[in-house]
Amino acid sequence: MSRKWAPPAEGACRAAVIGAGSWGTAFADHLFARGLAVVLMARRPEQVEAMRKRHRNPDYLDFLELSPYLEYEAYPTANLSTYQLVVVAVPSKSYRQVLAGLAHRLPSGVGVLSLTKGIDPETHQRLSEVALDELGHLGPAIAVLSGPNQAEEVAFRQPTASVIASGDLEFSKCLQELISNENLRAYVNTDMVGVELAAAMKNVVALATGMSDGLGYGDNARAALITRGLAEMTRLGTALGAEPLTFAGLAGLGDLVGTCTSRHSRNRLAGELIAQGYAPMSVETEMGMVAEGLTSAPAILAVAQERGIELPITENVVAVIREGKDVRTCVTDLMSRQPRVEGG
Amino acid sequence: MSRKWAPPAEGACRAAVIGAGSWGTAFADHLFARGLAVVLMARRPEQVEAMRKRHRNPDYLDFLELSPYLEYEAYPTANLSTYQLVVVAVPSKSYRQVLAGLAHRLPSGVGVLSLTKGIDPETHQRLSEVALDELGHLGPAIAVLSGPNQAEEVAFRQPTASVIASGDLEFSKCLQELISNENLRAYVNTDMVGVELAAAMKNVVALATGMSDGLGYGDNARAALITRGLAEMTRLGTALGAEPLTFAGLAGLGDLVGTCTSRHSRNRLAGELIAQGYAPMSVETEMGMVAEGLTSAPAILAVAQERGIELPITENVVAVIREGKDVRTCVTDLMSRQPRVEGG
Repeated sequence: MSRKWAPPAEGACRAAVIGAGSWGTAFADHLFARGLAVVLMARRPEQVEAMRKRHRNPDYLDFLELSPYLEYEAYPTANLSTYQLVVVAVPSKSYRQVLAGLAHRLPSGVGVLSLTKGIDPETHQRLSEVALDELGHLGPAIAVLSGPNQAEEVAFRQPTASVIASGDLEFSKCLQELISNENLRAYVNTDMVGVELAAAMKNVVALATGMSDGLGYGDNARAALITRGLAEMTRLGTALGAEPLTFAGLAGLGDLVGTCTSRHSRNRLAGELIAQGYAPMSVETEMGMVAEGLTSAPAILAVAQERGIELPITENVVAVIREGKDVRTCVTDLMSRQPRVEGG
Repeated sequence: MSRKWAPPAEGACRAAVIGAGSWGTAFADHLFARGLAVVLMARRPEQVEAMRKRHRNPDYLDFLELSPYLEYEAYPTANLSTYQLVVVAVPSKSYRQVLAGLAHRLPSGVGVLSLTKGIDPETHQRLSEVALDELGHLGPAIAVLSGPNQAEEVAFRQPTASVIASGDLEFSKCLQELISNENLRAYVNTDMVGVELAAAMKNVVALATGMSDGLGYGDNARAALITRGLAEMTRLGTALGAEPLTFAGLAGLGDLVGTCTSRHSRNRLAGELIAQGYAPMSVETEMGMVAEGLTSAPAILAVAQERGIELPITENVVAVIREGKDVRTCVTDLMSRQPRVEGG
């Protein structure tokens, strides 16, 4: 179980990307460009068939022409025994169930790289903990990837910086080598707790700034909410054992700013739609995409409340999406509840 | 000289706003709405005449209908002996000269609130130090106002949070009471060094992110630059005696994010124009507005170099605006020069 993960000495590293949403698709395309032997795996056989035929993903990033040499499988039935690396890019809601379904088909010592940004809605565990629960018997190497990484821009080969975090520094460094090129540069961070919590919490702050945008408020209000949001993320993160510096880095501040200001951000958009009157339960259907913050917010709030930590932004977001609190009252409360003396 | 500043016990506080650019105009309008007796003072008599006639500022924010009771004067000749508060909103380039011109017309014990975000291009002093140089004989109370405060949005009464910093906490608290209302909330910070340095440095980072935008790079690149930018600001600031927490607050992170992502930001726009081929010397003329980062960048770099502190973003911006370095090379260098291990 203690043997170190390493890519094959000869030939391409074989990688299965589980989940063919926007990020899974863009990342599979990126890994292929880096020379890995990549199979992009969707749940539904129809989607797999369509990608095989058209070399595009009909449901996400359909502008992206995928290589004719990229392969496709349906992950519920695929043979997974020959992969060195499994990249997980499924929503947090189905994360445990999907991994449980893979658990007896993956080889021992497999490398797992998780792209999903959220926490388990049932157990409130970080997703790397869920991965260890489900795949621990394989003695896997587990890492997470985060940072300001809008899938659309990675698909367009726009300059992007990412963070890889793992308890296993050697595994992180192997992944850094495998993944980095002139478009996407990966940096290593050893604080997996901080990187995972930041990734989950920033989506909740993006819902709040999206609500502010949706009410017609401007850049001043958004910048104030982002500032409070990072303080809130850092407060919970450090209470749970994360390093404060992680929140000042790419996986914290970087991803938060990217998500709260990007026109591609689905969590920001979900907040905007809610402010415009869409029912919180229906915005994911409306967008045809998952907004992880809607799932993460109640779980994060529960974790904070167990520890007696106040998270005003998360509390207000949960009040809107679960209790029907008026969005304008929520944003006004947030803008007026700041301490009178900063840092106080 | 040690008597405490206080607003008049009876009647409105008389305030002169020196400088009728966007921010001076919006702030004068805001102070008037707060019940102060405000005189907005421009340099040129023609601008004063136009404002008196039309109750609008013809040169800035001309959509903003000013109150018919707001008054206007030309500051080079106005009688200033009856004002309790002087608000300074002139460019950093002319800051010292303007204050020197007021020095013998202001009453002793006057309160000075500085809105300008920059540092003195000649002496590299913070602007509150310049104010003390020029007005020290009056025993003034001196404070600065900062934060994510786009003038256009304050003019539109959009929700905004500001920071007031002063070595004189009582003065800050008086100003907080005078200035705050339901649209604009002011918070007090005692770290004047940090607030002033953050205000000057964020404009330089906004030039860099504007250049990235102008090259067609996306939200991922911008978020990475903002993250590095805040680290760079914090590094210089703390070396000069500022509190690190200030950089995580509204005057640091908040103002940085606001400036780098707002469509109203003139420093961001200046960077964009430079990336599109405009000569750095001509963009202020092109925009008809001052981009303070163009003045501040070389001064900040000089301060850092005296202390042996590396500021990669500021160095690259200065190389572009002073030495004609290629913008694409500059942004590529910045995206690729990050440490391989975060925090390293």
